[in-house]
Amino acid sequence: MTYCVAVRPDAGLVFLSDSRTNAGVDQISTFRKMTVFEHPGERVMVLMTAGNLAISQAVRSLLTEGVDDARNLWTVSSMFEAAQVVGEAVRAVYQREADTLREHDVHFNISLILGGQIGTERCRLFQIYSAGNFIEATDENVYFQIGESKYGKPILDRVLDRHISLDAAAKCALVSMDSTLRSNISVGLPLDLLVYEANSLHVTRFASLDEHNQYFRMLSRSWSERLRDAFEHMPDPTWVPVEGEEAPITRVTANHEAELAVRATSSARQDSGRIQTLAEGLPQKTPS
Amino acid sequence: MTYCVAVRPDAGLVFLSDSRTNAGVDQISTFRKMTVFEHPGERVMVLMTAGNLAISQAVRSLLTEGVDDARNLWTVSSMFEAAQVVGEAVRAVYQREADTLREHDVHFNISLILGGQIGTERCRLFQIYSAGNFIEATDENVYFQIGESKYGKPILDRVLDRHISLDAAAKCALVSMDSTLRSNISVGLPLDLLVYEANSLHVTRFASLDEHNQYFRMLSRSWSERLRDAFEHMPDPTWVPVEGEEAPITRVTANHEAELAVRATSSARQDSGRIQTLAEGLPQKTPS
Repeated sequence: MTYCVAVRPDAGLVFLSDSRTNAGVDQISTFRKMTVFEHPGERVMVLMTAGNLAISQAVRSLLTEGVDDARNLWTVSSMFEAAQVVGEAVRAVYQREADTLREHDVHFNISLILGGQIGTERCRLFQIYSAGNFIEATDENVYFQIGESKYGKPILDRVLDRHISLDAAAKCALVSMDSTLRSNISVGLPLDLLVYEANSLHVTRFASLDEHNQYFRMLSRSWSERLRDAFEHMPDPTWVPVEGEEAPITRVTANHEAELAVRATSSARQDSGRIQTLAEGLPQKTPS
Repeated sequence: MTYCVAVRPDAGLVFLSDSRTNAGVDQISTFRKMTVFEHPGERVMVLMTAGNLAISQAVRSLLTEGVDDARNLWTVSSMFEAAQVVGEAVRAVYQREADTLREHDVHFNISLILGGQIGTERCRLFQIYSAGNFIEATDENVYFQIGESKYGKPILDRVLDRHISLDAAAKCALVSMDSTLRSNISVGLPLDLLVYEANSLHVTRFASLDEHNQYFRMLSRSWSERLRDAFEHMPDPTWVPVEGEEAPITRVTANHEAELAVRATSSARQDSGRIQTLAEGLPQKTPS
């Protein structure tokens, strides 16, 4: 698998990708998943791919080598057209490969993120599906993920919005990647991090981060410590009996900040004393 | 979908389940996923299910109603045998249902968590697969998840170990659930939370938490604030040029704690000035 994330705050664009590919767990390789198309002063586009590596490479090769002279990423006049060109490349590879792959029970699996800026148009960010269709990020939904996206999604949902700075967005993407690396061995270092400042029309900053990278190591260690610290400073539940209830009831309270009525399960056992099926609608007394 | 998590620290067992089921997004229902088998002073077992609801209910009904008099959850003498009984119930439902389901393109999809204690045996926790086979939690791996497990996994990986207290484990499970609820609409309230203290041989504490529950609301709000606070207090990357390099290079530094050699991408453009394929091995100079 793979994990890639891109953010489109007002200030520009941030792209982050890992570099692990695997076929099973005994064939693990390093392949970079980020491709940059840059014509300084005119256009900058960044493409990230996840899914079947052969399909990803075929699409990328079509876009970088087998270029239609009339309509390609260097000639299109808007990012919308650029996303169309990428979608068309996906469809061209599908036409060529899908039938054969299907005979070998290989699913035509690819997803892509394309972001960038052309001329005076605004920065735009797209997610492109294996059918070649795509969606665009908006002010309300400023990020896209492809690949192993679930582990790293909660921090994005909590932190990102259109007003975040580019460096903070890069930090958030790195934290999201760190959570993913920690919980899933199919995602691995090195990472490619690219930051694009809106209207600069050249790549503002790029870094390749490996296991020796001190900033990422500091971030990873610091985030772990801060998470554990934050976790420890939240009150544990405290369970206290509730008065005036017919059946044994407890409450859970936390430093008087919050409390919750709790019915002790022993009150809802069947008379046989043997079974209590919460699924059937606790808390309530079971008829005796 | 569903999200259930169970933890087996030295102090006992913690179980947490949501209650959302959905068939597509336009048919969402509330079904509890936790079933308790309790014979105070002798045994306590908790079963949680995820997957196809009809299959889950069939397995649960077999275990609670269609009970083999000789060998069932009330008669087995160890949790290992109990896990076998649950696995056999899964296989019985498979025998009865799988062919017909296959004709309707329905995958035989179920996964279960079973934990508890019988007599003087230690607390044990199992994850049971749709094939009826199972694995057991160990001192090194003290938790199991079923259903939508990825969103909530990072916090478990960071916080849980065998030495955690029951209330802290319950809090961790609730934080894990909160991350899942936030990022996936197929998981929903109310939650069932059950805490079992080792060697008590009865359900120690049980709570059903809905959207009005003050402890869970406090936890959810507090965790969000603390995460954002922790995030904001980590240093952003700072990008600084590096001296003595042939090509334009920058470093990213953070409060002098960490720094990283970074090659500005503009140094690696092809002479055409047009393309830079990180996938082909940046950072390195592209031949001119």
